[in-house]
Amino acid sequence: MRVLGVDPGLTRCGLGVVEGMPGRPPVMVAVGVIRTPVEDEVAQRLVRIEAELEQWIAEHKPDAVAVERVFAQHNVRTVMGTAQASGVAMVVAARRGLPVALHTPSEVKAAVTGSGRAGKEQVTSMVTRILQLPERPTPADAADALALAICHVWRGGVAGKLQQAAAARAHLEARAEAQARLQKARLRAAVEAQQGKAARQGRTVSGGSR
Amino acid sequence: MRVLGVDPGLTRCGLGVVEGMPGRPPVMVAVGVIRTPVEDEVAQRLVRIEAELEQWIAEHKPDAVAVERVFAQHNVRTVMGTAQASGVAMVVAARRGLPVALHTPSEVKAAVTGSGRAGKEQVTSMVTRILQLPERPTPADAADALALAICHVWRGGVAGKLQQAAAARAHLEARAEAQARLQKARLRAAVEAQQGKAARQGRTVSGGSR
Repeated sequence: MRVLGVDPGLTRCGLGVVEGMPGRPPVMVAVGVIRTPVEDEVAQRLVRIEAELEQWIAEHKPDAVAVERVFAQHNVRTVMGTAQASGVAMVVAARRGLPVALHTPSEVKAAVTGSGRAGKEQVTSMVTRILQLPERPTPADAADALALAICHVWRGGVAGKLQQAAAARAHLEARAEAQARLQKARLRAAVEAQQGKAARQGRTVSGGSR
Repeated sequence: MRVLGVDPGLTRCGLGVVEGMPGRPPVMVAVGVIRTPVEDEVAQRLVRIEAELEQWIAEHKPDAVAVERVFAQHNVRTVMGTAQASGVAMVVAARRGLPVALHTPSEVKAAVTGSGRAGKEQVTSMVTRILQLPERPTPADAADALALAICHVWRGGVAGKLQQAAAARAHLEARAEAQARLQKARLRAAVEAQQGKAARQGRTVSGGSR
């Protein structure tokens, strides 16, 4: 099972691809970080993140995407951008029918270090050791993304497969529904135009009979 | 100028399209709301919102999209979903090169009622009157989306045009950069593979001379 971990953020969005299965030492496939300029508008930064995520998924073909679950109570200053970036990451994965899993920071810490309250340093050290990397991955966002992917590989499996089927079905349904709604709206507009024409003709006739 | 207003939300995402220009009474083109089931996964709900927004933009061809600016301090329980939905709305608009404007709730209230502290009822009443609608738009999210669009039409113009050019340029740049980065990564992988081969051949030779 190949998993893309995403540590969402506008300034730095960590990405890590890991391959493995529960109970086995996983292998790192790729690691990186998407950076977007602080001076750009939020919409443009999100477009860049979307474009790069698309490339990563096309290149590394993950079976699932694991995104860090964002909480409103942490880092109020940056949390909105983080939430927006996480929304974009989820949509990029889910519209391709890839299952999307959300893991909390403490689930991830517990998975790689054994403690849900481990520090950043400890997470990076354990990621380096688990994946047998020649050096510590930097920045911390990249290490966190790898930790997320490891966490999902170790927890994943059956749940992921079920999710995948549900995701693919929901995606097709959503598209079909949106199209049906559009057709209905067009039909309604055509009927209303017809009725308007009939009403105008009615007025002309009654006006003529006076 | 035709503006799509988006009042972002996971459960109800209000949409309103308004046409007009600063200082003139605007006209309503369309109003509606995207609803997604609470029991669905967030990623699936975002995919539905994306699909419907795509349809709305394709159908109504707005010149700009106005999204309500979300703040972390309000409604902690739902704010993350709201932020994620707003991120998706921004990306859908910006990747088409449409300018995206963010307006705060008080800017919108001030624009349509004259007071930044107006209540929901008052906003809906004024929207109904400004657009000369036969009945009050419901739910409140739909009325808010129309208010956002009116606010942007009345404030818009030159700023919108400049933004549009910047948005289109940034979009093309982002795509070009992502592709360049991918090609560089492929080249690096090819070079490393070559070096690895050379190193292995070197070992074979020195092993043979012993």
